[in-house]
Amino acid sequence: MDLVGEGARLLYVGKTAGYHSRTQEEIHELLLSFAEAGANVVRLKGGDPLVFGRGGEEMDFLQQQGIRVEVIPGITSASGIAAELGIPLTHRSVATSVRFLTGHSRNGGTDPLYVAGNAADPDTTLVVYMGLSTLPSLAPKLMNHGLPPDTPAVAVERGTTPQQRTVFALLKDLVDEVKSADLVSPTLIIIGKVVALSPFWAESSEHDMLKTENSYATEAR
Amino acid sequence: MDLVGEGARLLYVGKTAGYHSRTQEEIHELLLSFAEAGANVVRLKGGDPLVFGRGGEEMDFLQQQGIRVEVIPGITSASGIAAELGIPLTHRSVATSVRFLTGHSRNGGTDPLYVAGNAADPDTTLVVYMGLSTLPSLAPKLMNHGLPPDTPAVAVERGTTPQQRTVFALLKDLVDEVKSADLVSPTLIIIGKVVALSPFWAESSEHDMLKTENSYATEAR
Repeated sequence: MDLVGEGARLLYVGKTAGYHSRTQEEIHELLLSFAEAGANVVRLKGGDPLVFGRGGEEMDFLQQQGIRVEVIPGITSASGIAAELGIPLTHRSVATSVRFLTGHSRNGGTDPLYVAGNAADPDTTLVVYMGLSTLPSLAPKLMNHGLPPDTPAVAVERGTTPQQRTVFALLKDLVDEVKSADLVSPTLIIIGKVVALSPFWAESSEHDMLKTENSYATEAR
Repeated sequence: MDLVGEGARLLYVGKTAGYHSRTQEEIHELLLSFAEAGANVVRLKGGDPLVFGRGGEEMDFLQQQGIRVEVIPGITSASGIAAELGIPLTHRSVATSVRFLTGHSRNGGTDPLYVAGNAADPDTTLVVYMGLSTLPSLAPKLMNHGLPPDTPAVAVERGTTPQQRTVFALLKDLVDEVKSADLVSPTLIIIGKVVALSPFWAESSEHDMLKTENSYATEAR
């Protein structure tokens, strides 16, 4: 934000407690009205606008109104959190692919409809965005489709912020561990063998071997 | 590179024609020897080090030698190229997930062994890194596993550089179009319905309707 020019007008449209959150349609209209008034409009978003960021919708809307749009890529949560925890999302001979899913159910319910059997691939790292509420149905579904119950996993609340909290667990224990740690949104979930490559995984396993009743919730840094 | 301090010693270890390319093991040893000499070592890479970047291997090697490693995330090719072409990798109600694959065959041959039937999901955007040589076996395999032959796709040579060249085509035509455009590595391939949301897709379709014999290779910007 230090780079913002003095003459710029700043308008907050994000979702923080205490602020009235604007709908996507209101954001579209705001962008359009400023652009039509001749302004250079910067829509600043966290993460990458084209990965679960609704940047495509804003781009689409504005282009249909004849507004020229340029998209600057960003660091998506998966990359930021992987770097923070030292998890190589694709590690030679461990994972040949990485897949970013949305945990939002298509019908707004608790069933992650998008999870076909094809998501349960032991050679693919799964990263679930916004998946806290659908995790209780996702985890058993993945195991029913063949993902080993002892697949390493981690849930990360407010990743890459000073308030980051992480819960490392085997897939079969993840739902319970996340519940006892009381994680809240936004939480990103990473499931796959690569999670065990994090230096923090070893620490969490020591906790396990000591048979503490606590979850593996740890403060980052 | 403008941010590099005057006292820093710069050492090129990348892969550009004319330079002797170092092996991954040589890079490991270089990083270690400088770190052991007490230097702060910055290993600068293009893209994101933990997505097909072998950053995990370097991190792993150094940590085993007791060297403290911090990973700074980067913009992976998929995000950079998606932004450049205006392709929302996950677009509401078009793609519920995005998957990054490596096109490198596990055994070094031309068969992309990693492509199980589970990669052929019409609701998932596929991004293939380093997939030029295995594309001729990947494309039919995806179609055999149920991905519609008219799925939009794009191959991008040297994406986000001034030399960027793009080939837009339906999946069934992609191999031929890429061949006639003579694309070379590095080329990134994006396959999925979201590709048609790019403003450049419409342009390429017009070419199609004019029934030109040319490929859709276009210079970017």
